[in-house]
Amino acid sequence: MKIARSIQEMKSLRRQCQGTVGFVPTMGYLHDGHLQLVRNAKKENSVAVVSIFVNPAQFAPNEDFSAYPRDLERDCQMLENVGTDIVFVPADTDMYPQGYNTWVIVQGITQYLEGRSRPTHFQGVTTVCNKLFNIVQPDRAYFGQKDAQQALVIQKMVRELDMNLEIIVCPTVRESDGLAMSSRNTYLTPQERPAANVLYKSLMLAQDMYNQGERVAGKIKAAMAELVSKAPGAYIDYISIADIETLADVEEISGKVLVSMAVRIGKPRLIDNIILG
Amino acid sequence: MKIARSIQEMKSLRRQCQGTVGFVPTMGYLHDGHLQLVRNAKKENSVAVVSIFVNPAQFAPNEDFSAYPRDLERDCQMLENVGTDIVFVPADTDMYPQGYNTWVIVQGITQYLEGRSRPTHFQGVTTVCNKLFNIVQPDRAYFGQKDAQQALVIQKMVRELDMNLEIIVCPTVRESDGLAMSSRNTYLTPQERPAANVLYKSLMLAQDMYNQGERVAGKIKAAMAELVSKAPGAYIDYISIADIETLADVEEISGKVLVSMAVRIGKPRLIDNIILG
Repeated sequence: MKIARSIQEMKSLRRQCQGTVGFVPTMGYLHDGHLQLVRNAKKENSVAVVSIFVNPAQFAPNEDFSAYPRDLERDCQMLENVGTDIVFVPADTDMYPQGYNTWVIVQGITQYLEGRSRPTHFQGVTTVCNKLFNIVQPDRAYFGQKDAQQALVIQKMVRELDMNLEIIVCPTVRESDGLAMSSRNTYLTPQERPAANVLYKSLMLAQDMYNQGERVAGKIKAAMAELVSKAPGAYIDYISIADIETLADVEEISGKVLVSMAVRIGKPRLIDNIILG
Repeated sequence: MKIARSIQEMKSLRRQCQGTVGFVPTMGYLHDGHLQLVRNAKKENSVAVVSIFVNPAQFAPNEDFSAYPRDLERDCQMLENVGTDIVFVPADTDMYPQGYNTWVIVQGITQYLEGRSRPTHFQGVTTVCNKLFNIVQPDRAYFGQKDAQQALVIQKMVRELDMNLEIIVCPTVRESDGLAMSSRNTYLTPQERPAANVLYKSLMLAQDMYNQGERVAGKIKAAMAELVSKAPGAYIDYISIADIETLADVEEISGKVLVSMAVRIGKPRLIDNIILG
């Protein structure tokens, strides 16, 4: 496994790659959700590249950029174990040198859900992914369904800017009690941890109600909110049932919808989602 | 010479190209300035690709998008004569399908000069160039020095998004009286045409004053403005002496500066520039 510590080094390693390249962009502190993406990248391509970069541009000043968990040595060990070929670990100043001023923005679908709660977040995500795609030049890039809106935004960016890669969205990997794997789960105290699966439980409740014929979004969301309210220390940021294309809230479920939610459990803000229809 | 009329067709032709690709993005209605770019692209690369696309995104609603001169047949004849290999002529709806919502923006240097007079212009330019670069995947793209700010903005975008091509800026090609070649010169009436070289004359005046030791930007700009005011039908939009990196106006000329101007002569708004220092 090779480690590229600069853009130049990564581009140079890329020129030596033969066959197709599968790419998994991450912010490190890896868990089995990430590793599943890498396994898919490795299986479907000749070369698997993983980037580890805690992207300052996607954190607001009041968010957890400096506190975000980091452990490069452990990450590299995990990546080597699943057959990663190249790890790309650029420095902040390499990615955003002094005077940096170019941004890629996707409008419309970024105004809802995570974009409403975190107004500058997606500009940071699309910009860094655009850069990473240009540096790594993958044939396929792999994202987790846990960050559903992120995957949709990046797919839209790639399609609309005519970029030459395919975005592949892989199922959310969960702990045994249903909690979606996330680097931010590490913020949960042992006391808080049991309550954290309330996101998954409410999504399953939504699934059940839908299966039993309920189509009024408001009724499903109210039942989900009631369930969350019973979890100690849980604070709802949003619960949404939205059109899968536009991400605008729907009142009546007819086509495919994204049921998604953001809930604070103590310190961390956790997100999760399922698709219905 | 092959003509690609869709993004898909262009990408497919690109896959068949061997060696390096030189690319000249244009809005058509070609003149010798464009042809000089194509000659350079052809000389320095195995394959020369030219796009013709009047980009709606870089025109404001009050500007001349629908009136912008078009003559595809004549353009193709001229391009064939200089050895162009592929002409890419996408449709508006192919480039900007319904619901299109992704934009590339360069902040900072776009707030001055053309960006101040045309606030949405550069977002359209950077977005379309980003898309064209992804579609054509050139090794080198060629731009004219006449649009000095455009070239700087695109160079910054390419550098900051880590795109894999080189931007090459070629000298402005001029008519015998010094008027910079531009598709918009076609708007000049025979009566207006003689006055149109006042831009070049004032730039030469600036050059002379600089050569004689003048370093106070205000004095040079005042002399240029006075000269322009004597040309019948001329209306100054801006005259600027700016730092070549930031494009912010300078008071005292010390390093390299861009002397640039936009002047209306009757209907058309013409721009021109030189670099001093």
